[in-house]
Amino acid sequence: MRAIEWTGEKVRFLDQTRLPLEELVVTTDDELVIIDAIKRLAIRGAPLIGIAAAYALVLAVQRVKHPTELLPTVERTATLLIATRPTAVNLSWAVQRMKRKALMLLHHPLSEVRSALLAEAIAIHEEDERMCEAIGQHGAAILPLAATVLTHCNTGALATGGNGTALALIRTAWEQRTLKHVYIDETRPLLQGARLTAWEVQRMSIPCTLITDATAAFLMQRGIVNAVVVGADRITRYGDVANKIGTYGLAVSAHHHQVPFIVAAPTTTIDPNLERGSQIPIEERSSDEVTYCGGTRIAPEDIHVYAPAFDITPHELITAIVTERGVASPPFSVSIPCMIGETEGVHRVEEGAG
Amino acid sequence: MRAIEWTGEKVRFLDQTRLPLEELVVTTDDELVIIDAIKRLAIRGAPLIGIAAAYALVLAVQRVKHPTELLPTVERTATLLIATRPTAVNLSWAVQRMKRKALMLLHHPLSEVRSALLAEAIAIHEEDERMCEAIGQHGAAILPLAATVLTHCNTGALATGGNGTALALIRTAWEQRTLKHVYIDETRPLLQGARLTAWEVQRMSIPCTLITDATAAFLMQRGIVNAVVVGADRITRYGDVANKIGTYGLAVSAHHHQVPFIVAAPTTTIDPNLERGSQIPIEERSSDEVTYCGGTRIAPEDIHVYAPAFDITPHELITAIVTERGVASPPFSVSIPCMIGETEGVHRVEEGAG
Repeated sequence: MRAIEWTGEKVRFLDQTRLPLEELVVTTDDELVIIDAIKRLAIRGAPLIGIAAAYALVLAVQRVKHPTELLPTVERTATLLIATRPTAVNLSWAVQRMKRKALMLLHHPLSEVRSALLAEAIAIHEEDERMCEAIGQHGAAILPLAATVLTHCNTGALATGGNGTALALIRTAWEQRTLKHVYIDETRPLLQGARLTAWEVQRMSIPCTLITDATAAFLMQRGIVNAVVVGADRITRYGDVANKIGTYGLAVSAHHHQVPFIVAAPTTTIDPNLERGSQIPIEERSSDEVTYCGGTRIAPEDIHVYAPAFDITPHELITAIVTERGVASPPFSVSIPCMIGETEGVHRVEEGAG
Repeated sequence: MRAIEWTGEKVRFLDQTRLPLEELVVTTDDELVIIDAIKRLAIRGAPLIGIAAAYALVLAVQRVKHPTELLPTVERTATLLIATRPTAVNLSWAVQRMKRKALMLLHHPLSEVRSALLAEAIAIHEEDERMCEAIGQHGAAILPLAATVLTHCNTGALATGGNGTALALIRTAWEQRTLKHVYIDETRPLLQGARLTAWEVQRMSIPCTLITDATAAFLMQRGIVNAVVVGADRITRYGDVANKIGTYGLAVSAHHHQVPFIVAAPTTTIDPNLERGSQIPIEERSSDEVTYCGGTRIAPEDIHVYAPAFDITPHELITAIVTERGVASPPFSVSIPCMIGETEGVHRVEEGAG
């Protein structure tokens, strides 16, 4: 099944906290179940939480009985959704898009608003699927031949509405026979690499090896890896990237060993309002995510824990940023605004001024 | 209690696989129990496994009934011991030292051999305790003021016959009020940082924070850490260091952020026969150590795993190597032979030649 689906009247999703031991499918018409699932990472991956947020708004509006409740319901649900995960920008992008749609139809009959919001959520979902496809095509083209790729966290079908971002690139390269092997970081604390990426890559029958996060630099030292490919939760207009904790250390190691470091994400991940990574809010997670593993306590009681969910990789360490629109290369402060169409805007203004 | 003790006729040790949840003490007069404990990391830490190996030989010889059995028993036990962990050189150093003692006394009465071997094992243990003390003193002196130190794996009382190597340095700096805070890498896969170092540092009431291994580079980026201090399992005469997997990635990050990278180990860790890290055999551990955590499977069945226990940090990335004899600085190809007294030898030869 897909990570999330619209059944016709409800949302069905895979509880990713149970994988790979159990494929627990949850079907709900309650947006609070979705919000809770995003909080506890049962639904995760920057593009997927955007899609889930859109469906959560559809569910919330389904229960609206009177037109005057529409706007307060949308506002309340939007606020709850955005508070779940502060770093990923796709979430607020999807919520804003749904809100704009609702506002446009504020004085239309409720049934019409409901249908329009559902159509918008499905459009967000389908667009993401196409973006994954395009990212895979653009990205596979820049991998080295006989690529042995290292990836971090999960960026596949479980993280998106389609085949993934970094993992779509890996999948496409495999189909095009340019990929040799994938090394998968387990990605502590929540082990998205070991639990989810290993599960996905194994199901695609791509040759793969699981390593602990701290083994990555040693693989690069031995010349085993010739590309690192990761996803992103937010990208600034200068090309600084927020992604799962551990990404920055990989980028430093890749730089030291002159291994290409490739970021793959849809353009909805780009936050044109931010220039520098230091402006991105970093979500901190509960210490229990570090002090427990597989349900067992692995550290002394009362130990202090620092558990940022993300880190920031500065643009200087990034070789390429692949989106559905193509490949951005350094200097990203030029290529990213160009990619998201901002320089066109500037160009038009200049023409007008001239 | 200490990590290992001689009770008068048996060996008593803490089963470190159970910490911090349970303090299981094992008392045995069977050297095979010690050998198994070293294999499964119930007894671990390069200096400690040297001490445990010495006691294992004492136990083996205790059961020898006839003088003709002495040498075969020592040889057989020595072979089993050295096969347990191929990377740490302290193990074979202690075994060779015990074997030399046994060979010297080959034609003495058995009771005399037994006493002499016990005295040798106790000497190895007590010397290690004094080495820890000296490492602490020498190392604390080179930490920056208001040091915020990052450490990896466990290098404390649980890894040695005394207060530790890197952790003795941290402890001494804390007593001298030059230490501010310790960040502890959890150290996947066997979590020696989370389980053992966190437990030891907490018991010393030193302010500390536990992080996942992949958080270390981010801490350095934010300027939070001003020294990295680690132990070693083997050091070549040129200063390349084998240590717990993840050490190399920390060294690369420390280099990138210009954070001092300090290795603390007794001179018994130095292997004068090797020049380059690439000559050090790297032990690979069972895939189960990665695919299970806290007794729960965390990865799909049949996933391929690469689980080296150690990595190699080249001397270029190391700021200082602290032993019980002092602090070696680059160029280590000069300072290490000097520290282990080899240049004196060379010097004497030159004098003789002159």
